[in-house]
Amino acid sequence: MAAIQLTERQKEIILIVKENGPITGENVAQHLNLSRAALRADLTILVMAGLIDAKPRVGYFYVGDNSRTIISEKVMEMKVKDCKSRPIVEREEASVYDTIVKMFISDVGTLFIVSQGGILQGVVSRKDLLKVTLGQGDLQSMPVNVIMTRMPNIITTTLDESIYEATKKIIEHQIDGLPVVRPCEAEGPNFGLPEVIGRFTKTNITRIFLELLEGD
Amino acid sequence: MAAIQLTERQKEIILIVKENGPITGENVAQHLNLSRAALRADLTILVMAGLIDAKPRVGYFYVGDNSRTIISEKVMEMKVKDCKSRPIVEREEASVYDTIVKMFISDVGTLFIVSQGGILQGVVSRKDLLKVTLGQGDLQSMPVNVIMTRMPNIITTTLDESIYEATKKIIEHQIDGLPVVRPCEAEGPNFGLPEVIGRFTKTNITRIFLELLEGD
Repeated sequence: MAAIQLTERQKEIILIVKENGPITGENVAQHLNLSRAALRADLTILVMAGLIDAKPRVGYFYVGDNSRTIISEKVMEMKVKDCKSRPIVEREEASVYDTIVKMFISDVGTLFIVSQGGILQGVVSRKDLLKVTLGQGDLQSMPVNVIMTRMPNIITTTLDESIYEATKKIIEHQIDGLPVVRPCEAEGPNFGLPEVIGRFTKTNITRIFLELLEGD
Repeated sequence: MAAIQLTERQKEIILIVKENGPITGENVAQHLNLSRAALRADLTILVMAGLIDAKPRVGYFYVGDNSRTIISEKVMEMKVKDCKSRPIVEREEASVYDTIVKMFISDVGTLFIVSQGGILQGVVSRKDLLKVTLGQGDLQSMPVNVIMTRMPNIITTTLDESIYEATKKIIEHQIDGLPVVRPCEAEGPNFGLPEVIGRFTKTNITRIFLELLEGD
């Protein structure tokens, strides 16, 4: 996709076609007190942009602004690896108490629980921790793996997944973020298991959105 | 802004200009084994789109793809009222325990604490509640207004603020969302005070972003 800043005259033509279409180029020119020739380039641009269309022996008509809400190819091609954050992890043997402390220190909403070698075992959210603190258990002795959401019930993403697909997962599953994983390459028992290498969250998406609006 | 889907030939022209620019139209045509006349429309479109530029007696040169990362006027004109969610509120006299229960039932990350008439008094997050549950206090008897973040230390938005400005506030202040307020119109002591009428969060932004990518 490419973007064209419409001129005032082009915007006026769209309005005229919207209200009067189908309308001949001749008649559009009359509305503007211009010659047909003077409008030729503008009409061509607007047709190419998909804002108006032309039918032989009928004239120009308005197509709608569906093509105006666009995002460039660049964004559609963005991948998780282009904007992920580093993962905040806790060992699966850690106590619930230690996990809460870690969550406060790192100021994230979700911690990934890993086994030796950084293999993803579970996910714990502020909500999970809040629930357990209301109970009667001893937070110092209770291991976090008792309360975490476990694999395979965790939605993950990968470095090469598109931002679009990852965002869809977040909305569809109503979660705040996804662990970014890759198959562990170390030989041994962990080989091929999901190693946590990042996180992709609504905060990352909000930043991308802001950069888009700022034209970065 | 308007969007134009580039043709394969137009993409090829961009590449040629990028690698060989400044380059005359004649030379671009040679690269493609086409006549100069056959390229005239494409070159015009690419210049109008700001992807290449032309200097007299020099030729065409590549401008860069900064203009390609765009968002339509429609999104820039979107306001908080177009995509806010309903607010989840709790009375300021409620106990911490009741507030936690409300947070679980409504499944939100932030509750707005209000006085009689829905006037914003404070904000409580999961993080605030998690912190207090670790302490020694009695959650049933402790009022939530003891632990909430109070006005005027709350960042708010309004129905008519642009999505862009509201998103900037969320990123700059590192928060998950904003209460949407308007001056209370009821006569009496509340007149003019901030009445809570919605919330605008990273979830709303994530939804807008997804809709953009899907071209809705």
